[in-house]
Amino acid sequence: MHHATYPARAPLAPAFVEALSDRFRFECHLSESMRRQHGQSEAHFAEVLPDAVVFAATTQDVADCVALCAAYGVPVVPFGAGTSLEGHALPVRGGVSIDMGKMNRILAVNAEDFDCTVEAGVRREELNAHLRDTGLFFPIDPGANATIGGMAATRASGTNAVRYGTMREAVLSLTVVTADGQVIRTARRARKSAAGYDLTRLFVGSEGTLGIITEVTLRLHPIPETITSAVCGFDRLQGAVDTVVQSIQSGVPLARVELLDDRQIAAVNAWSAMALPEVTTLFFEFHGSPAGVAEQVETVAALAEANGGGAFAFSHLAEERARLWKARHEAYYAAINMRPGAVGWTTDACVPISRLPECILATRADIDAGSVPATILGHVGDGNFHVIFSIDPARPEEFEEVARINARLVERALAMDGTCTGEHGIGIGKQDWLEAELGDAVALMRTVKRALDPGDILNPGKIFRAEA
Amino acid sequence: MHHATYPARAPLAPAFVEALSDRFRFECHLSESMRRQHGQSEAHFAEVLPDAVVFAATTQDVADCVALCAAYGVPVVPFGAGTSLEGHALPVRGGVSIDMGKMNRILAVNAEDFDCTVEAGVRREELNAHLRDTGLFFPIDPGANATIGGMAATRASGTNAVRYGTMREAVLSLTVVTADGQVIRTARRARKSAAGYDLTRLFVGSEGTLGIITEVTLRLHPIPETITSAVCGFDRLQGAVDTVVQSIQSGVPLARVELLDDRQIAAVNAWSAMALPEVTTLFFEFHGSPAGVAEQVETVAALAEANGGGAFAFSHLAEERARLWKARHEAYYAAINMRPGAVGWTTDACVPISRLPECILATRADIDAGSVPATILGHVGDGNFHVIFSIDPARPEEFEEVARINARLVERALAMDGTCTGEHGIGIGKQDWLEAELGDAVALMRTVKRALDPGDILNPGKIFRAEA
Repeated sequence: MHHATYPARAPLAPAFVEALSDRFRFECHLSESMRRQHGQSEAHFAEVLPDAVVFAATTQDVADCVALCAAYGVPVVPFGAGTSLEGHALPVRGGVSIDMGKMNRILAVNAEDFDCTVEAGVRREELNAHLRDTGLFFPIDPGANATIGGMAATRASGTNAVRYGTMREAVLSLTVVTADGQVIRTARRARKSAAGYDLTRLFVGSEGTLGIITEVTLRLHPIPETITSAVCGFDRLQGAVDTVVQSIQSGVPLARVELLDDRQIAAVNAWSAMALPEVTTLFFEFHGSPAGVAEQVETVAALAEANGGGAFAFSHLAEERARLWKARHEAYYAAINMRPGAVGWTTDACVPISRLPECILATRADIDAGSVPATILGHVGDGNFHVIFSIDPARPEEFEEVARINARLVERALAMDGTCTGEHGIGIGKQDWLEAELGDAVALMRTVKRALDPGDILNPGKIFRAEA
Repeated sequence: MHHATYPARAPLAPAFVEALSDRFRFECHLSESMRRQHGQSEAHFAEVLPDAVVFAATTQDVADCVALCAAYGVPVVPFGAGTSLEGHALPVRGGVSIDMGKMNRILAVNAEDFDCTVEAGVRREELNAHLRDTGLFFPIDPGANATIGGMAATRASGTNAVRYGTMREAVLSLTVVTADGQVIRTARRARKSAAGYDLTRLFVGSEGTLGIITEVTLRLHPIPETITSAVCGFDRLQGAVDTVVQSIQSGVPLARVELLDDRQIAAVNAWSAMALPEVTTLFFEFHGSPAGVAEQVETVAALAEANGGGAFAFSHLAEERARLWKARHEAYYAAINMRPGAVGWTTDACVPISRLPECILATRADIDAGSVPATILGHVGDGNFHVIFSIDPARPEEFEEVARINARLVERALAMDGTCTGEHGIGIGKQDWLEAELGDAVALMRTVKRALDPGDILNPGKIFRAEA
């Protein structure tokens, strides 16, 4: 595994363990099995166990846990669904893993105001199931059935971002436990505000390093009257991207537009029993009124044809659409399962859309020059794409090769005025590039971190490279 | 005038004046006339003159000016177009007013990426004139022809926010001079990023208190194929708001929807030579394809009729639309000119939209119980509204009365989980309510301010109430 070593650490002070156990009783776990469940990630990072696991049921639980950790200088790492791809929830310096999964209540749905407030441990699929009868939905969809708190903490986005934005736009307000165990609310429920610093956006994407999110107020959107999905194959990547750019220029409000390369399509066909032509393919989704969707489809289909695309294959029925997007969401597993026993390593970059074909083609050439199988897919409307590598865990040289390809990919994206991560975050996997991307701005981020968490107890070892 | 007194201050140190004059030569001004131009606002606050005015032409000029101010502990206050309504650019503790008006170059337009980069002193109307041939536009429209830097610093929004968002969503990246005179860029040009803290959003809305914005990279949008405006009168406020809520629920992507009360309509009729029926009125704008706009209009007109609205009066032609929105934008002057010689005081609150009718009706009743003429208008799709008071400057008791009505309005909005300012910002006018709105979160804001500006030189005396 990559990143196989973590810093050595001292055991917890017995007085701390006693205080924690006294406060949380059966919700405080010290067993190896429970610690192991909170010491792994879905990605390629080696496991690292917390010293204790606490299940929080309320914001006050989180506040009390953080206050205890602050008093004893113990790291505290929030744990949601564990679906992060950059090791965010791994307790790399030990301490307490605070599991938010029991904070799963939907506290309020204000249908007329198009918002809701949920506890951080609510998962997005459960939220949408709950909302169905209101005619509203929560659009942000990173694929995994992540918790809303985790999605806020990592500034998640996904397939719908081109139309509905990311967690940056979706979050109206947060309840946060700060490093001293205080509870704050970052904003009121108004849809916009100019009242002071935008603390909401400061915490969204802060990866648990500035505070622990316990409640989230979210913007909701009306479920569209009509939803139609379609797939379209292209003979050239440039044609696919040009179709998307021209569609946006034409004012088509694409709800989803996903690019999958030929190898990813092959993997999807095998894993999800589809029979798509194995070429570069766009998955579309159109939202609107019946006439509006028909007009969108007509415009995009004409642009696709002019750019070397094939005929549209439509999925009008909800079951067909669900099957298509399930296949898209399972692309990660599909890719990894092309190579039995493989470990996945997904990377993530985002560039201005005009540079996307060049960035993807150069990356594909780099992959082809190596030996590790990989597929490419992406949220092409945002200029954001991923590479999924399938690594043989018995061959450490494959980790090294992927690390090199990943490094070149990130440097390529930065040279195009792009970012080293469009949506997966920094975690422990992208720290080497944060300074390359943002220079002295990172020193300012460190100043904010030191001001808000002077004891460095909140998810320490994330985002920032250890200072020399 | 309200807020007629500002803290006493020491004169600038002669060595500082000499150093500033040496560095900036003819761009450094000490004359009373130039200082007076930078010591006034469009609102009801008393004038307060800076000790010096510096015109910056480059980011390096701003950096050098801030570094000098830091070395001597002198306040530095950025000045854009001076159109703030809460006294943001008033140098309440003296020091240097740094005028950004000469930093008015459009540095790059990347049409295929739907973005551009401009210097902070570019004004929004000039930007849109420049963009016209690209088929793109910059939608954020606060009415005033403000600078882009000032709009970013105050998190401006306005009439298009219901569809296109506010400066929070519009800004992709900023170049900022920090309190020690360093220059940072907050993000790359990618449309989204999960790379570290969202410094862009931290500076957007920070009112010049954390850094001085010198360049802004903005998201642009395609100019819609069809734009249609319409006005519609209602017999009841509730019917107007219900029309808007139901339109949004129906998925209509309203581009603009503005509410003007009967008195505001009377003022607009007089000021702009219109002949609108003097009732509560909605101004709409619809963007889309011809068929899409026709469908939007049909849906909204049916909802309006069901909610007691009259017939739609359309403005299909560009000139008619321009006249309508010019009338809307001049609502402030129209209102004030209903009372010759009056001084304007505009307030701003934003509530969850379900509470908007109650909030507006209670505010109207409060106005009617007093003696100062006032009109109500608002960005009703966001739950944001303004009251424009026309005060006789010879009657100090009118300032007192407005201050009381304003206080009750803000308290009413806060009781509805709203905000004391939807878009005008805190400045010096809303400091008393920031803590009422956000409680302990304000202490966290102060921590951020102290960390990033330990000498308190960046626009001091704004946002935060003086600590006891």
